[in-house]
Amino acid sequence: MLKLYYAKNTCALAVHLALEWAQAPYEAELIDFQRQQQRDPAYLAINPKGRVPALVTERGVLTETPALLLYVAQEYPRAALAPLEDHFLLAKMNEINAYLCSTVHVNHAHKGRGARWADDEAAWESMKRKVAQNLTENFSLIEGSYLQGPWVLGERFSTSDIYLFTVARWLYANDIDVAQFPKVAALLQRMNAQPQVQKVMALHA
Amino acid sequence: MLKLYYAKNTCALAVHLALEWAQAPYEAELIDFQRQQQRDPAYLAINPKGRVPALVTERGVLTETPALLLYVAQEYPRAALAPLEDHFLLAKMNEINAYLCSTVHVNHAHKGRGARWADDEAAWESMKRKVAQNLTENFSLIEGSYLQGPWVLGERFSTSDIYLFTVARWLYANDIDVAQFPKVAALLQRMNAQPQVQKVMALHA
Repeated sequence: MLKLYYAKNTCALAVHLALEWAQAPYEAELIDFQRQQQRDPAYLAINPKGRVPALVTERGVLTETPALLLYVAQEYPRAALAPLEDHFLLAKMNEINAYLCSTVHVNHAHKGRGARWADDEAAWESMKRKVAQNLTENFSLIEGSYLQGPWVLGERFSTSDIYLFTVARWLYANDIDVAQFPKVAALLQRMNAQPQVQKVMALHA
Repeated sequence: MLKLYYAKNTCALAVHLALEWAQAPYEAELIDFQRQQQRDPAYLAINPKGRVPALVTERGVLTETPALLLYVAQEYPRAALAPLEDHFLLAKMNEINAYLCSTVHVNHAHKGRGARWADDEAAWESMKRKVAQNLTENFSLIEGSYLQGPWVLGERFSTSDIYLFTVARWLYANDIDVAQFPKVAALLQRMNAQPQVQKVMALHA
């Protein structure tokens, strides 16, 4: 049985959803960021990064959302979560997933996690002021160049839809009007209607 | 024929090396960051992100280093650049590649690219002051938890070695003593002895 460590409103939601879509046998354990549980020695022994998600498998622990999404897609191919037979399309999926992880998520993190990159409060405030602008640029690029519609890869659903859904939800918390990105807004709406989303979101509320 | 757009001393070196290892038919075109060529309309038409690497294939353009490394490994399986037959090991490769992309590279970028995350010079200076500390922590984690030795995945060479080599070279530019990470230092030395590295590095000098 797989075990997913997750925290609410984090990118771990993407892996949580992928496991649900895959109908994988798994349990999910909440790490409470408010109580700094990610810094508990017991959790650091599982994931020395002190972050989520972490997925415990029979062969060891795996981390990093893009790696986990491909792993779940490969382990449960019947769920068709990735175009595994087509290297180019799979690279398109991994391309958007890498962008969400290394650019969009990182830009968002400058809102509340400035202490990762600077030691003084003035710098944190300065970073916060740029977050909405950066996310708006990122989602303009996604809308214009990467999201084919209705799903990221066109007619074909993939982990990129799950991951984009997860990250696009952060736009609300940044007071960015999602309606300016019609394809992103439509994808959010489509995703919200899926039973897997409704089931997992109840645990993240 | 594939076409790689690269800039010197960037993460594009990893994809450049992977293409060389794969013995892929490719040409490489230099984008001169000093002349801001990555902002030329002609280049933005290829990669609207205005970054490198970008790989032009017969089916379209691909970006993002972790996605490109897996793509090259899948397209040229005889080069054995990834444990394609083992989902768990492949996820370990993708895990370290995602970490290098979204954490280590991002931390390094706060040295010279602070303008991405703040608009004032005081914040940029504040970010710069934390870069060496962050990179030291990142490489301590890699040394202790991810680099099995001699290669990242143990006895088996993979794209993670190419990517780690690319990013570890940035330690020199940050005056961080690589000797404090013996396995990383040994990997750098091993990589420097490979003919593929010597050939490609001549183009990045």
